[in-house]
Amino acid sequence: MTFKFEISKKSKKSKARVGKLHTPHGIVNTPVFLPVGTQGSVKTMSPRDLNEIGAEMILGNTYHLLLRPGPDLIKEAGGLHKFISWDKPILTDSGGFQVFSLAHLRKLTDEGVKFTSHIDGTKHFLTPASVLETQAAFGSDIMMPLDECVAYPCDKKEAKKALERTTVWAKESNKEHGAQNAEHRALFGIVQGGTYKDLRKQSAEEIAGIDFPGYAIGGLSVGEPQNEMFEMLAIVTNILPDDKPRHLMGVGFPSDITGAVKLGADIFDCVIPTRLARHGTFISDEGKISIRQARFEKDFSPIDPTCDCYTCQNFSRAYLRHIFWAREILALHLLTIHNLRYYMRLMQRLREEILAE
Amino acid sequence: MTFKFEISKKSKKSKARVGKLHTPHGIVNTPVFLPVGTQGSVKTMSPRDLNEIGAEMILGNTYHLLLRPGPDLIKEAGGLHKFISWDKPILTDSGGFQVFSLAHLRKLTDEGVKFTSHIDGTKHFLTPASVLETQAAFGSDIMMPLDECVAYPCDKKEAKKALERTTVWAKESNKEHGAQNAEHRALFGIVQGGTYKDLRKQSAEEIAGIDFPGYAIGGLSVGEPQNEMFEMLAIVTNILPDDKPRHLMGVGFPSDITGAVKLGADIFDCVIPTRLARHGTFISDEGKISIRQARFEKDFSPIDPTCDCYTCQNFSRAYLRHIFWAREILALHLLTIHNLRYYMRLMQRLREEILAE
Repeated sequence: MTFKFEISKKSKKSKARVGKLHTPHGIVNTPVFLPVGTQGSVKTMSPRDLNEIGAEMILGNTYHLLLRPGPDLIKEAGGLHKFISWDKPILTDSGGFQVFSLAHLRKLTDEGVKFTSHIDGTKHFLTPASVLETQAAFGSDIMMPLDECVAYPCDKKEAKKALERTTVWAKESNKEHGAQNAEHRALFGIVQGGTYKDLRKQSAEEIAGIDFPGYAIGGLSVGEPQNEMFEMLAIVTNILPDDKPRHLMGVGFPSDITGAVKLGADIFDCVIPTRLARHGTFISDEGKISIRQARFEKDFSPIDPTCDCYTCQNFSRAYLRHIFWAREILALHLLTIHNLRYYMRLMQRLREEILAE
Repeated sequence: MTFKFEISKKSKKSKARVGKLHTPHGIVNTPVFLPVGTQGSVKTMSPRDLNEIGAEMILGNTYHLLLRPGPDLIKEAGGLHKFISWDKPILTDSGGFQVFSLAHLRKLTDEGVKFTSHIDGTKHFLTPASVLETQAAFGSDIMMPLDECVAYPCDKKEAKKALERTTVWAKESNKEHGAQNAEHRALFGIVQGGTYKDLRKQSAEEIAGIDFPGYAIGGLSVGEPQNEMFEMLAIVTNILPDDKPRHLMGVGFPSDITGAVKLGADIFDCVIPTRLARHGTFISDEGKISIRQARFEKDFSPIDPTCDCYTCQNFSRAYLRHIFWAREILALHLLTIHNLRYYMRLMQRLREEILAE
């Protein structure tokens, strides 16, 4: 199936919309949240667990999978879907973000980025062409081009240089992707620009000027206040074509997602629900709550009485607290199920609210 | 339902038998293997995972559950079954074995054993009456009386003293249990005697002389060679009443179980399948094999092509090796599913072999 984005309904109150992404591995309802399967596994979750909580698409990290087990092995396994036993869509990032945050001794040039693996010290060179080749070996449904993501806060000159390099690479990537005859795999363009309004505008215009089937907004949710993120997002979604899907990369908390949907973002991914679970924190409409607290010692109610997940249907706060303190792996799994299911229900509610207008 | 053991078929070739244990939480087919849920969780496995691999009964460790979360909390939760969300039978040990292997500063007297918790240094005193009270708070289907388990090797004088104390405590426990009017919960007698033939005979005769609905054989699989274990077991099963179930505690590897079934043992429990899984080792008819090996790097076949478990049906050795090295929790879970399923299929095969004679 060729990639296609179909908008079913636009909100009258905001820039929110409900739609469907058509991908080679099936249809995805947007706005959508992607659980993050960094190394070929959404932490503690088997594919059937992901199906059960209602995941429609997951994200894989090119940086991690490139270093281990490597694109050759994944290709030999029949692609990432087959290797990890997940038959629904997969979006992969370009690896750029992780190179800037995890790798050692990285060296950036106009050609790409050289770095040393954080795992075994091997040397690698990411280029616009190489990251597409890697993601083609994975067989990703949605791919990202190499971009340069700056830290927060970032000096304006540096942010400008990064966005301009991102534009150059985006053009190269689009050309390269076109030459591969791989239209079934969608390549998105990535907008950068730090937290500078004029730079976000410049980047959005430059990237929107390249014909991509979808667009990603990078470099947000990296430490800036929420209102600043929303401000940047609003500038960008005003410029990006309305009929293409928009992925707000690495975002976020439920309130970030709720606000960003209203500003026209369609796709989200974030490690927050899985990471918090592994630290003993569950998410509900009340916010983030640690199961470790003494007040839950004899609390025999579910962690979230409004939730339909396996964890909430079968286990009490007292039990989850006990197995968390007893360092049982099951605690991390059961909390992950709940947190991801909470995110899936959040997305469903956001879609339903728009449809009900 | 009152506890009952029903033998459906006796082997003509050995002392093996196929039977059914009737318990308050349902019927269990014997010979049976109990996954170990030390702290109220079979490591990495949810109750539905246990149901799926075919677990019919699990074991809980009184020592661990006594220290954390404690019998009062479990009782307030509605019992151990409800607390951990497992509605099939649970067998609990007495805690004695762990006191001897894990606790600090233990002091043994004829009244019981004083010890200091390995978790928080709190002081506890286990007596024949207290361990029954604790297991009654759990609501265990099969309970064990306090016994004294000696190390291997053990000086004969010490082994004799331990078995005699075990007999005294068994009598006290049986009397105490009778006074509790808790016939629906079965209390088993435990045979000790180290690796001394005459002591095993003495213990089996003394314990068989007390009317228990089932018997356990303790103090084996603690380091002695397999042939020595089988020798001790044969002596004991020749003496224990033939119409009562026999639990060979803490055993073992598949070959231990296969041999012990032929010598008349009906119930087994062991941490081997779950512990090996967490160390990256899977079990098959070929033995114990580490998934970490380089030869599995590009091996896209299942870990055990003869196995019907979720892991073998969906994942390759290459994938399991990758996620194990990547330190993904999912690796531990998927290997545990396979190893436990292997044990369940082993027990099924042993039952079928006897039935087919």
